[in-house]
Parts: sequence; structure tokens; C-alpha cells
Amino acid sequence: MTKLLIDCDPGIDDALALALAGGSPSLEIVGITTVGGNVDLARTTRNALALREFLRLGDVPVVPGSAGALLRHTVRAAHVHGSTGLGDAVLPPPARIADAGHAVDFIVDTLRAAPGEVTLAATGPLTNIALALRREPRVAEWARDFVIMGGSYTRGNHNPAVEFNMAADPEAASIVFDAGWTVKMLGLDVTLTALVTRGVLDRMRPLGRLAADLLVPAATSYGVVTAEGGPAIHDACAVAYVLDPSLFTCLPAVVHVETAGRYTSGMTVTDFALRDRPANALVATSLEVDRFWDVVLEAYGRLASRLG
Amino acid sequence: MTKLLIDCDPGIDDALALALAGGSPSLEIVGITTVGGNVDLARTTRNALALREFLRLGDVPVVPGSAGALLRHTVRAAHVHGSTGLGDAVLPPPARIADAGHAVDFIVDTLRAAPGEVTLAATGPLTNIALALRREPRVAEWARDFVIMGGSYTRGNHNPAVEFNMAADPEAASIVFDAGWTVKMLGLDVTLTALVTRGVLDRMRPLGRLAADLLVPAATSYGVVTAEGGPAIHDACAVAYVLDPSLFTCLPAVVHVETAGRYTSGMTVTDFALRDRPANALVATSLEVDRFWDVVLEAYGRLASRLG
Amino acid sequence: MTKLLIDCDPGIDDALALALAGGSPSLEIVGITTVGGNVDLARTTRNALALREFLRLGDVPVVPGSAGALLRHTVRAAHVHGSTGLGDAVLPPPARIADAGHAVDFIVDTLRAAPGEVTLAATGPLTNIALALRREPRVAEWARDFVIMGGSYTRGNHNPAVEFNMAADPEAASIVFDAGWTVKMLGLDVTLTALVTRGVLDRMRPLGRLAADLLVPAATSYGVVTAEGGPAIHDACAVAYVLDPSLFTCLPAVVHVETAGRYTSGMTVTDFALRDRPANALVATSLEVDRFWDVVLEAYGRLASRLG
Amino acid sequence: MTKLLIDCDPGIDDALALALAGGSPSLEIVGITTVGGNVDLARTTRNALALREFLRLGDVPVVPGSAGALLRHTVRAAHVHGSTGLGDAVLPPPARIADAGHAVDFIVDTLRAAPGEVTLAATGPLTNIALALRREPRVAEWARDFVIMGGSYTRGNHNPAVEFNMAADPEAASIVFDAGWTVKMLGLDVTLTALVTRGVLDRMRPLGRLAADLLVPAATSYGVVTAEGGPAIHDACAVAYVLDPSLFTCLPAVVHVETAGRYTSGMTVTDFALRDRPANALVATSLEVDRFWDVVLEAYGRLASRLG
Repeated sequence: MTKLLIDCDPGIDDALALALAGGSPSLEIVGITTVGGNVDLARTTRNALALREFLRLGDVPVVPGSAGALLRHTVRAAHVHGSTGLGDAVLPPPARIADAGHAVDFIVDTLRAAPGEVTLAATGPLTNIALALRREPRVAEWARDFVIMGGSYTRGNHNPAVEFNMAADPEAASIVFDAGWTVKMLGLDVTLTALVTRGVLDRMRPLGRLAADLLVPAATSYGVVTAEGGPAIHDACAVAYVLDPSLFTCLPAVVHVETAGRYTSGMTVTDFALRDRPANALVATSLEVDRFWDVVLEAYGRLASRLG
Repeated sequence: MTKLLIDCDPGIDDALALALAGGSPSLEIVGITTVGGNVDLARTTRNALALREFLRLGDVPVVPGSAGALLRHTVRAAHVHGSTGLGDAVLPPPARIADAGHAVDFIVDTLRAAPGEVTLAATGPLTNIALALRREPRVAEWARDFVIMGGSYTRGNHNPAVEFNMAADPEAASIVFDAGWTVKMLGLDVTLTALVTRGVLDRMRPLGRLAADLLVPAATSYGVVTAEGGPAIHDACAVAYVLDPSLFTCLPAVVHVETAGRYTSGMTVTDFALRDRPANALVATSLEVDRFWDVVLEAYGRLASRLG
Repeated sequence: MTKLLIDCDPGIDDALALALAGGSPSLEIVGITTVGGNVDLARTTRNALALREFLRLGDVPVVPGSAGALLRHTVRAAHVHGSTGLGDAVLPPPARIADAGHAVDFIVDTLRAAPGEVTLAATGPLTNIALALRREPRVAEWARDFVIMGGSYTRGNHNPAVEFNMAADPEAASIVFDAGWTVKMLGLDVTLTALVTRGVLDRMRPLGRLAADLLVPAATSYGVVTAEGGPAIHDACAVAYVLDPSLFTCLPAVVHVETAGRYTSGMTVTDFALRDRPANALVATSLEVDRFWDVVLEAYGRLASRLG
Repeated sequence: MTKLLIDCDPGIDDALALALAGGSPSLEIVGITTVGGNVDLARTTRNALALREFLRLGDVPVVPGSAGALLRHTVRAAHVHGSTGLGDAVLPPPARIADAGHAVDFIVDTLRAAPGEVTLAATGPLTNIALALRREPRVAEWARDFVIMGGSYTRGNHNPAVEFNMAADPEAASIVFDAGWTVKMLGLDVTLTALVTRGVLDRMRPLGRLAADLLVPAATSYGVVTAEGGPAIHDACAVAYVLDPSLFTCLPAVVHVETAGRYTSGMTVTDFALRDRPANALVATSLEVDRFWDVVLEAYGRLASRLG
């Protein structure tokens, strides 16, 4: 049983990632922390709360964190995620409010309480994680594993060089990659192969309320579904990695996050030639797509049975 | 009675600033938080603890904070402050250890508990303050006033363009100046006029143990004392401002902290021409030196009587 | 008949590019200007002179230009090109010296003398071209076409983000891309498909002295030749584009050259989404490899007949 | 007799500098090259031509150069210098056109023709000088001396950190300071003490046409003249230095020009602590103001006699 703390900015694909975690009996979600990102913090937190109830995640704490980047003005992706942040999915309003406290403290305290036991996954801008590391550097030792959806070693989606989560807080990303741990980086290089194609969608549709209220409207609201292609469920890759790292081919690398560039700030400059330098990242270079969907859809199936 | 929370990195002149605060009955020190700066965090904290006891500051909490800068490698000034951080002053080792918790939390909690009542003074790198602001942006509203020793609108002392505290964490300084409050900036422009001359030293010498164990050895260990000149007690200016702002002439300004420069990172680029922009700082441009020393030496005298 | 002015830093693949031009009857080489790059200016010039004679290019002027970058310290690639710059190829020392004057003036004067008639191809750092443009902005109008080997819209070879010619002078590259013309950019994205495989090498071998003294030793000295792979003859792609643009698929793009990055200076940040901005580049995205080699080897064959 | 080549962007104070040179029998002006700066190149060139005739400089070549900065968008100071560039001064339109050729070539050729004999003074953005140095690095050896009006080691006038001429082309300035010569830097630190006060103006007024048509309207059009203060005739300081360096106190320094800053690009970061590094500049730190005006007004007097 892996304890998982998810720092996220739901966000359509964050929702699909939470659903994947929620449907995976080998994972225990020990907390959900939120950050401003795809949409603003009030919305990402509201969406996390709505998802906690809709996905029947029980008493998992939902703790809000940072509203904006460490240093820069805010970058949003509302054009992708819609005004609510969940695309065309409409969930019942949450009955319960957020837990007290701040995401940064929650992360520090949760990891301190169980060193070596909790895996941290981040699917949004890395502001909370960076602040937690600066508040308590041992977070990097205490985490059992640290997995992000973010970055790219080829091209970006926020601009030609930079992936959105990294663009949203380059300085935070730089702090996180330099913290002394090995970041498991699931970047666009692999997430853009995790596409909701027509075939995938057909396997989702039968999944009752989960499909009708969340999976299908969310997935189809931000990309055109065809036989070959469709929207990428980026963030679900991070949870899939926690479930089964063997789904991905990964290579050790030295990753520097550019913070000084005019056109490249936030770029994850990824050097696979280590030249005696220790790797600070394990970077996913390919995904077994069919097996990925088997894992994801199996979890969604389990969750759908629970939701009815 | 002004409640004062001091974030500092003692440091010789931090020690002289704490002594000034300790000898001022109109100030209540509500906490001392420490940051790595002049010397490393272990030493600045140990020095703060030793000073709490030597200066008989009672139960004032001493809470350690950030060891290094937000984003950059560490810059130290041990060549100025000696290996202990207090120059030639040797204080008894502290009997009590630091208070539990982290400076960032202490700052946030102290200001939240008494909005509008606590003045915050920072005499070291601004890492703790920046993290507190990112952890809780309302810190900027809750502070009764915010005073720093740091920066310069002409030349620096870490390099030709940059003052030491700003050089030590330019990104933190940038966050702090952009936080929505009005920073009271006591920079090198005025602190370099607050010199321990031979005349000042002669007024210190009679002050018993305070003089013998702290003031004289500390002050004389980092600069040559002459009739006209001597070491600057930079940080004491921040406390003096809290005691009596009228000691300083101040002008409103827009201050941007450079974070991108190759030779200028940390520079406080100070524009006195507001051109319809709101000022984010009140910048000291001159000091009434004689009256300053009257205030400082009067406080030292009171403290000396207490210490015996 | 296309008039071609080649600005280069021979360099193994520059040599192979000059051989391609020299064996192409549809091209008239009107000048060869040199720049410090792969190796230093003295060597690139000496190599250009040796090639003029070995390839029997006649009275084509060879004019030396800039020894180093506009603003930065020198970057060399002698580890790739060997100490002479021509790998294992050993050409007879040139009998004639360089032509009088400076590359920058030669470029300006040549293009001014025949506006709209001369194609400019650059296969090294863009220092000379940038200086020519700043010396005379109308160079951008006078050039019939402007083709470079350089840049990449995915990954680099100097570092993970930056191609060598761009890394060698980022500011020059920025000037060149912003000059108002449409840069034909043959980057690593296509040049890394122009590989001297075993099959290609077998077609080269019979080409007499040209093969024995230049093509084979040069090509084999900087990469392992296998059935599938081998060294890329980057610079020859620029000349091949001049000969037959239809060998390449090209897309219009807005290319910004990063000059401010810590890890990315010189990166050609390539945006294919024009969003109403005029394209400043036509970027090659694929190469018809078989047809490319047919064109190249046919030219080499013609040249070999001439050399005997 | 000092041969002087002046690179300038007239500009009110450039005009006053040319008048100073024109009235100094110990100087032979061997050329005037122009650059876009205070106003655009067409105007700075036209003004140089008008001044050549008005000041009766004879056959001195006037050669236009660079219209804009090496890398950046154009910065102008027309708000200071008026739409013509000469404030309220109205000179007769020039009868003769500019000499053929380009300033960069003229500088290179003039210095090459008489190594060690020609002093170069630059009173505008350093674009032409930088291009000349990149075109021919030996310019730095050939110049007898190199004097600029530009920079500051305290505060700027384009923005709080940067002087106008440096702001107009930071990269050019960086090239120029790194060229291996010793730049004589007359910055705002001294030029802001060379003020046309009421007393100075009273000494100018009797100088016939020179005063009536140029000195008085130019000087009074860009600053308020009082008993104590008035407009600074910045550029005249550079010529005054050539006439008599002893007017200035100068200190050796290492000057780096910031090119990467967000708020500081173009700043001349001036380190007087050499620490075993060779100085690349001799920086003026004070001016004997009274003697300066004696020198200047004596020259103006001589010139006025000539003009009638």
C-alpha cells in the first residue's frame, strides 16, 4: 500500500488523475493539496473538494496552498480548462469546506510524520513543493518518491520551449529540481502519447456516473477525439507512474530549469549525458500506451462500481 | 509601546541593534527570528540565544528560520563578522536552546494574532520574510510597519552595485518589495553615516559590562576608529527608525530589485520619480547623526544599568 | 545560374558543402568569406584557401572576417573537427593567400553590386552576417535568398537546447533573424538525417582523389559509419537547399533567438503558430534523404571528373 | 597638436562639445562620425553638417554611421534635445552633404592610417565604436587615447541605474569596455557638475553670433539656469578631457557593463577595488569646475572671434 500525497490544480487532467488514484486499491491518498495553476486557487480548491465527494475519497484532507508563483505574475490555462477548470464536467457543489491549515505546512508535517513512507506527486505548478522545501529541506529526504507531471526535453506547450506547469513557476521548479532528490519527471514527451482516442473513449462510456458526469465530458471538452488521437490526460501519467513505474521507460538526466531566459524561462533543459555529474532526475522517454490504458481503465472501472 | 519582531542574522551590527532595542523602554520585543546571512544559521541562532541572555531580554522567543537563499547559492560575510559572527566580542554560551517551530510560521502567527500591532524589522537577508509573505500574503497587511536595513540607491558594499543583505537573496528581496506594503528602507546611503567614531567610542566605554563585553569589542573589530570615521552600525539604524522615524529624512520611491543582472542582481533600483506609480518604499536619504547617537547611547546607558 | 556567396568556418562539413557547390554547374560561387567557429579564424581561412585550390574553384575570392563572437567568449568545436579543422583529410598547403579586405565589407559590397542576384549561405557562426547587417541594413533586401545551417526546433548539439553555430554567437544570430528577411533555416532537425552511412560511403569511394583526399577521410573522421547511421554532413544541407529547395519540407515560423538564458543562450525558439505575426523564417522539418544523396553524389561525381 | 576623431549624436551638448573642439587650436579635428542617439541618424548627421559649416570647421569629413543599437530597440532623448536635436538653436541648413562611406569604415581607416596618433572621443551611443572594434580589433591599439562621455558609477539619467548613452546600446558599451584599451570615462558623476549657471551664461552672452545662434539658445533650452545650477554640458567634458586631463581627478577601475539586467541593462558597474585585475577604465571622479569653464569659455571666445 503506497501512501500518496497529491499536490494539484484541478484542472481536467488533475481530475482524471485523482480518479485514477481513487480507483487504485494499492494507493492510499493521504492528502490533496491545491495550488493556483490551470485556474485560480479558489477554483482549484473548490474542484478538489467537489472531487473528494464525487469520487468518494472519504476523509482525505484537502488543504489549499499558494495562489500564485514565487516570483512571477500569474499564468493561467483557463482557455484549456474552461471557466470552472473542469471543462464540460459539472459536479455537485461540495458539501464540506477545505481543511484548516496551509498546503505547505501540510506537506511538511505529513512527510515529517512518516519519513520514507509517503510518495509526493505534483501535477500543477511547483510553488507549494518549493516553499515546503525551503521551509524544511528534509522534505527531500523524507519523501519516499517524488513524481511530477511537468516539463519536456523537446518542445513545450505553453510556448515552443516550455511546458505549462514549469512556465507557471520557473523559480519554484528550479528549487524543486535542485533539492537533492531524484525527480521522476513525466513530461510532455510521454504525456502527449497518453491520448483519449475514440477507442479509449468507447471503453470509458459504459462506466456509469463516473463516465457520464466526469470522464467523458471532461476528456472531450479540451481536444478532438479521433481514431488515432485525442486529448492527452497528462496528469494521470504521474499517478500511473506511482502505480507501476514499469509502464514508462526512464533515463537518468541532469535537468536544469532555465530561470533567466527571455523566451525559455521554465524550460527543463535535460542533459542525458551525465559526464560524472549525479543525475537529479529520472526522465520518462516512452510509455507503453496500451498497458497504460489497461491500468487506467481498470481503476476507473473499480471506481465506477463504487460510485454506482 | 511598540511591539517589535526582529528578523536578523547576528552579526555584529545585529547585536548592536538588539542592544538598542533591549535598552529602549518604548519597545517590546515580541520575538527574534534568525536567518542564515552574515554567518550560517547555526551561528546566527546561537548568537541570538547568547544575546537574549546577555542582554537580559527575558522570555522573548528566539526562533530559527531559513539557512540559505530562496534560489541562489549562499553568500556569507564571515570576513567582516569573524568566525563567530560577533567579531571580537565573546559572550557566555547560552543556557537555553531555541524555541520550537520555524521563523516563517512564527512571523505569520505573531502578525496574525495581532493585526496592525506588530512592527517587523529585518536586518539580514529577506528569505524568512519572503517565505512568510508567500505562505500568507496578509502578513503585508497585518504588519504595523516594516523596516529593513538593506539596499542602497547609490553604490553597494557586496559589489559596486549591491548591498550585502540584498545580494544574499535577491529573489526574496524582490518578493518583499512587491508585497503591497511600504518598505521602510534604511540603506547604505544612510547607514554609512552612522559611524562609531572615536567620540562615539569614548561615550560607550564607561558602560560597564555591556561596553566591555559587547559594544567595544564588537564595534572595534570590523573597522578602524578615527576622529572622523569608524565602522558603521548598519542594523541599529533599522531599530532607530522604529524608535524615532524623525531621525531620518525619507522619500517615497518605486524600488525594483534586480534579479536578472550578471553584475547587479540584488540591486535596489530606486526611482524617486513616481510618475503616477504608487511608491512601494519610503527610502531614507539622510540621518541626523548627532541625534541618532544620543538616542542610541541613551538606550545603551539604560541597558548598561540593568546589566551592571 | 545562381550566384552564391558562402560564409563559412571550414570545418569538415563546410568542406563537404564547398565541394557540393563546386560540383554544381547551376551555381556560381562569387565569394567565400570565413569566420572563426569550428576552429579559429586562421585555420578556417587556411582551410578555405586550401579548398579553393584543391577543389579548383578558380579565382573565387576568399576573404577572412571575424575571429570571435560579437559579445561572448569563444566557443570552439576542435574536438569534433580535429586540430586542422578538416579531420583526417590532409590537403596540399595553399599556394595563394587570402584576398585583401574584410568579410563584412566583401559581403556588403558584393550584395550592393548586384541587388536581388546573390544568394547568401552561412554555415558557421553568424558574426560576419550580423556585422554586415548592422553596417548596412539593406543587405537583407539585396540578398536574393539567405540560407543557414544552424539552429534546431527540438534539441541542440552544443548543449541540450542549443545548436553549435548558434551557441557560438547568440547575439549575432538574434540580429540575423530580426533583420527583416526570411531566414531559410536548415537545423539539426533535418541535418541529423543527412548521414554518411555505409551505403553512402560506398558510393563516394570510387570518386578518385576527391574521395581519397577529402570526402572519405573527412567524413569518417568524426562519426562511426554503420549501415543505418553515420556522421551528419550538416553544412552540405544549406548548399543542397540552394540547389533544390524541394528536397526539404519547410514550414513558416517565428524564430526568436534566446540571448538571456543561463542554459539556453543561442536557442532558436521556433513557433510554428504564427498567430498573425509575420514569419521571419522558413524552417526545414524534413529531408528527402535518398534524393538528397543523389543530388550530392552527382555533384561530387562531376567534381571528381574535373579533379582527376 | 592632437588629432581628434569625434563620434557623436548632436544633440545639444554634442554641439557644445564640437564648438569647444573647434575653438581649440591645440586640436585638429580629423573627422566627425555620427550615430543615432539623442535623435535619429538623419538628424544627428544633418546637425553635424550644419555645425561643420556654422563653426567653420572647414573640410573635416562628416560621415554617417549606425542608425540603431546593435541588438536592441531604439532609445531616443528627443524630449531633452527637441525635435531638431539642437533645442532652441536654429542653424542655417548645411550647404554640403555628408561625405561618402560609413562611420565604421572611416574610424577603422583613419586609425589604421596613423597608429598612435589619433584620439577617439565618443559622445553618443557606442554602436559605431563597437562595430569598428569587431570589424578591426586593432583599433584599440591604434587609438592614441579613447575618451567617452557616458556611464556613471552612482546613478543614471535614463533610469535610476543607467546613463543615457549606455542605455541606448548596452551591448556596444560592453564590447567597447572589453576591447583591451583603457577607456577614459567621463560619466554623470562629473558631467553633472559642469553646469551652465547664470554666471557661466553671462560669460557666454557677449560671444556674438556663436552665443546668439548656438550657445545661449542651446544651453537654455534644456534646463533651468539659476545662480547655482543649470543644464549640464555633458559631452563638452569629453573634449575638455582631451584638451587638459588635469581638469579631472580620475581613478583606475574595472568597469563591467551590465547587459542582462531587467532594470540595469547598460549600467557601468564600476569597481575601484582592482584586486589584481587590470583596470579597463580610468574613471573621472571630480572636475575642477572653475578651471573647466575658463578652458571652455576661452575656446568659445576664440571661436567667436573667428565667426564674427
